[in-house]
Amino acid sequence: MANKQVDKYQILLDLGKRRGLFWLSYEIYGGVAGFYDFGPSGVLIKRNIINEWLNQLVYNTGLVLEIETPIITPRIVLKASGHEDHFTDPITECTRCGRVFRADHLIEEALGIRAEGLSMDELWKLIKEHNIRCPECGGELTKPKPALLLFKTEIGPYKGSPAYLRPETAQGMFASFKHVLNIARNKLPLGIAQIGRVGRNEISPRQGLLRLREFTIMELEFFFDPEKALEETMTYMTDEIRNENINIITAEDKLKGEEKTRKYTAIELIENKIVKNPWMAYWMALGNIFLRKLGIPPEKIRFDEKLPEEKAHYSEQTFDQEVYTEKYGWVEVAGYSYRTTYDLSRHIEYSKADLTYFKKYSKPVKKKIIKVVPNPKKIREIVGEDIGVIMKKLSEIPAEKILENLNKNNYVEINNYKLGRECFIISEKEETIHGEKIIPHVVEPSFGLERIFYVVLENSINIARDGRIVLKLPPRIAPYKVAVFPLVTGNKPKHKKMVSIARQIYRALLENNILAYYDEEGSIGRRYARADEIGIPYAITVDYQTLEDKTVTLRDRDSREQIRLHIQEIYDKLLSLLGEKKEFNIEF
Amino acid sequence: MANKQVDKYQILLDLGKRRGLFWLSYEIYGGVAGFYDFGPSGVLIKRNIINEWLNQLVYNTGLVLEIETPIITPRIVLKASGHEDHFTDPITECTRCGRVFRADHLIEEALGIRAEGLSMDELWKLIKEHNIRCPECGGELTKPKPALLLFKTEIGPYKGSPAYLRPETAQGMFASFKHVLNIARNKLPLGIAQIGRVGRNEISPRQGLLRLREFTIMELEFFFDPEKALEETMTYMTDEIRNENINIITAEDKLKGEEKTRKYTAIELIENKIVKNPWMAYWMALGNIFLRKLGIPPEKIRFDEKLPEEKAHYSEQTFDQEVYTEKYGWVEVAGYSYRTTYDLSRHIEYSKADLTYFKKYSKPVKKKIIKVVPNPKKIREIVGEDIGVIMKKLSEIPAEKILENLNKNNYVEINNYKLGRECFIISEKEETIHGEKIIPHVVEPSFGLERIFYVVLENSINIARDGRIVLKLPPRIAPYKVAVFPLVTGNKPKHKKMVSIARQIYRALLENNILAYYDEEGSIGRRYARADEIGIPYAITVDYQTLEDKTVTLRDRDSREQIRLHIQEIYDKLLSLLGEKKEFNIEF
Repeated sequence: MANKQVDKYQILLDLGKRRGLFWLSYEIYGGVAGFYDFGPSGVLIKRNIINEWLNQLVYNTGLVLEIETPIITPRIVLKASGHEDHFTDPITECTRCGRVFRADHLIEEALGIRAEGLSMDELWKLIKEHNIRCPECGGELTKPKPALLLFKTEIGPYKGSPAYLRPETAQGMFASFKHVLNIARNKLPLGIAQIGRVGRNEISPRQGLLRLREFTIMELEFFFDPEKALEETMTYMTDEIRNENINIITAEDKLKGEEKTRKYTAIELIENKIVKNPWMAYWMALGNIFLRKLGIPPEKIRFDEKLPEEKAHYSEQTFDQEVYTEKYGWVEVAGYSYRTTYDLSRHIEYSKADLTYFKKYSKPVKKKIIKVVPNPKKIREIVGEDIGVIMKKLSEIPAEKILENLNKNNYVEINNYKLGRECFIISEKEETIHGEKIIPHVVEPSFGLERIFYVVLENSINIARDGRIVLKLPPRIAPYKVAVFPLVTGNKPKHKKMVSIARQIYRALLENNILAYYDEEGSIGRRYARADEIGIPYAITVDYQTLEDKTVTLRDRDSREQIRLHIQEIYDKLLSLLGEKKEFNIEF
Repeated sequence: MANKQVDKYQILLDLGKRRGLFWLSYEIYGGVAGFYDFGPSGVLIKRNIINEWLNQLVYNTGLVLEIETPIITPRIVLKASGHEDHFTDPITECTRCGRVFRADHLIEEALGIRAEGLSMDELWKLIKEHNIRCPECGGELTKPKPALLLFKTEIGPYKGSPAYLRPETAQGMFASFKHVLNIARNKLPLGIAQIGRVGRNEISPRQGLLRLREFTIMELEFFFDPEKALEETMTYMTDEIRNENINIITAEDKLKGEEKTRKYTAIELIENKIVKNPWMAYWMALGNIFLRKLGIPPEKIRFDEKLPEEKAHYSEQTFDQEVYTEKYGWVEVAGYSYRTTYDLSRHIEYSKADLTYFKKYSKPVKKKIIKVVPNPKKIREIVGEDIGVIMKKLSEIPAEKILENLNKNNYVEINNYKLGRECFIISEKEETIHGEKIIPHVVEPSFGLERIFYVVLENSINIARDGRIVLKLPPRIAPYKVAVFPLVTGNKPKHKKMVSIARQIYRALLENNILAYYDEEGSIGRRYARADEIGIPYAITVDYQTLEDKTVTLRDRDSREQIRLHIQEIYDKLLSLLGEKKEFNIEF
């Protein structure tokens, strides 16, 4: 291994096609950049990652409800969210060959500087100053302009109304926040989760599974009362979460030119005010645990705080969660954004709907309410026939404003009429206020499923001493949990019996919801190798001894060790190996 | 109940919003017809239906591999599949108010006749003859024209290439057939399954969850060698499948005007040639079993064979699987189509890729091959300087054709030259043929998830004698498997203890992958009622006795009966109640 560099990426691509993990979509038509199919093993691994995410971030927290909203989104929703204005990349076109490029990437490649977040003018200045030309044909480039990365469509087949494919699942959750809040009996904190496909119309995606035009997001919008954030975070932080070690690169360090990785526990992130809201630390810790349980070693996970120009338009603070890969270096697999009230406020503005949370005070508060009512009789004495106009204008002025004017000038001036204190009936009342409407704040952890799929696979590839590929996936992520083989297949009675028993065990496992893989082709060694290649953690073999004492062998993928056990012990043994059954340790 | 008609549909709509099953998407923006959100309970029920489908039709058959392909589909793919030309509905527009209608539906409503499948001219004739006008304003209507029901978009944000959202998941599976065949080690029969979102740009969808513009399909393309269909079907048909009772309305009966429901077992469907291919019966039986296991009574399921004008362009025979509902009558929830070689042939034609299956003969076959090679020397004697043109033309004519001409006329005529037998060298050779390339036939069962969701919910609504709603979902479909309650909550030490124990049981269940539901708000009666409303089949209550002997009560949703059991027995009891654990009955 030391003197032979293993190209895990190439191994993965080969394995992907050969054993059904993933491949370029529509290959028979030449393929389309940014679209991948997932094969039988790939689909199962993806589904297992989703289930782990649901277990870790949704079910086990007890704080989150999952919903499902459409991919096709009316234009108004993504206008309100700011995507129609901000979800763009700068493009430049070659005036000779007509090819289109992402302008900032072109400049980064040509000059070796960072260009993300620069304005169109700044990019154009750099292109002109450095005479950057088309990398394909050397032609001159046009001035960069923003290209909208939303896939456009229309709802209705004829004279339809404009719509987009969602670029994130978040907006469907914001739009239905009130529904879910009701279902949660109007209590905060409340997380809403969604897993689903999104579309991002990238300019010319090249990085395989890392830059897709259609992919799956696992996203969570966490709504809370900012005034209670610290107290509530402390309540829900278990010891496991509180003490989770997290690698961080802070924006402050980056601005100082020191890109060093610091190590904090989740609680230290809060105490040292690295996070702008305590809930950020809670979710970052859970996200760290989630990736570790997928087999990623902790030293290969870090959180990179984004600089102001790198953040999305809605975010007060953003950390990218990155995983180190051999092929691509550090890869972003999740983002944690403090979206504050941005999205709910915008949807309130655009929809006029009430998306607030009624925050009950612990004790009702008595409040003095001053009422100001115009006195038409007195006003008519001053304004005569203009009374109608004046009364209408007065109705549009808030009571506090009138009071303020009276207190300052002793009159209120409207259409050149000066209305004195006598024109108003002022009364004071004490009211009991039980609470107030607030717009909850939001922290969002958002995960790219296909990127996680890639880093998990790359990380799990092992080349055994004999050159065999072993995909060392954690058992819970493995596509199949156990392979079942008859030792020998053939027409002799004993061999027919082995096949029959192996098939029955396979069926019994399926009936018990343990996804098994059956294979009777080729030598037993080749069958073990095939199971190892797609990461099946255990293999059961029916052999001659089985026919005598009803025992089988159970082989471990990683140690290659085998034990013998009775057929009736298989189920419980597998459950315990797979960590599916845990003791009920109840404290009384 | 007898004298009070219960509107289950209205109950479901109310429950949907209140308890988080489903609601109209983007309601804060007025909603958009044809789009629904699924709430927390709805998402879980949908996922359980998907898992049941996978268990019944994919894993347990041992014949099917699942893949995942993109929603966004390059135009060429849906051109090849015929959708760009055929996936249309006739629309007519009001010349006064501009509203657009589906022409055939308008005629059906106005005249009470069937209009589906009529040509634009026929529809126009009916509109004029019967003076059918705009149902909204009475204005005149335009001549019907076809409207394409595909959602259009472009791949690439600038000067992109045309694409559609897939209207079915099938084409991604056909396009990647060769990949999956390789993964299955080139063996037929082979099923490819896919579950995913599709878009159908309906003209003006109204029927709630039944006519969505974006929905989820669970689809299976089953590839087989037609010559072996009968033999192989018999091999894979278990007794359960073979004897499944299926209600059928045949096209033959419908054409005779007799719309009667006949009852056949799956094997009788084959023997009586009701199905045009035996594999149709196999999948129809499995689909019937699937729906029955979702709680639909067998008498509420039937298969309606489509008439020639009702079938999709690709289908040789189609049965709609329908479920009887109180709200909508018989509702199509799945379609079974015999697509033959249509799709693969079209993709071969458009992509030029080889999508055939190499069918190995059981024994190699010796075959005489006659070779016909032009003799340029002899030909030049006849055609002189035209030799180049003539040789080129000859190279384009198949050997059999030349031979046929020689045998008939003793010459081949090209550009007025007559070339005799002497112009060709004819040789005969014997070759050993090991097999041949065939295009597999396809049977497709295709299920609409949201429609199944609707019929399952409507069917499971029960109003108890006391007026309470009980959703009698089969336990495997229920959103949560068990509710956990402390009997009393409060600040007394005993009550605090109850809360603590109940919460620990809840967490232990989650850790054991049993999705539980915890509730401590309100009286125990109200909590049972809330659990019943979303169909939670079991409820565990921690009470005073728990504190003494570590037992809890387990209540059954349907019988309302309670048993006491020890905390340590909960897990095994639930597994057995939920039917998750089955004996390994291995025959030696």
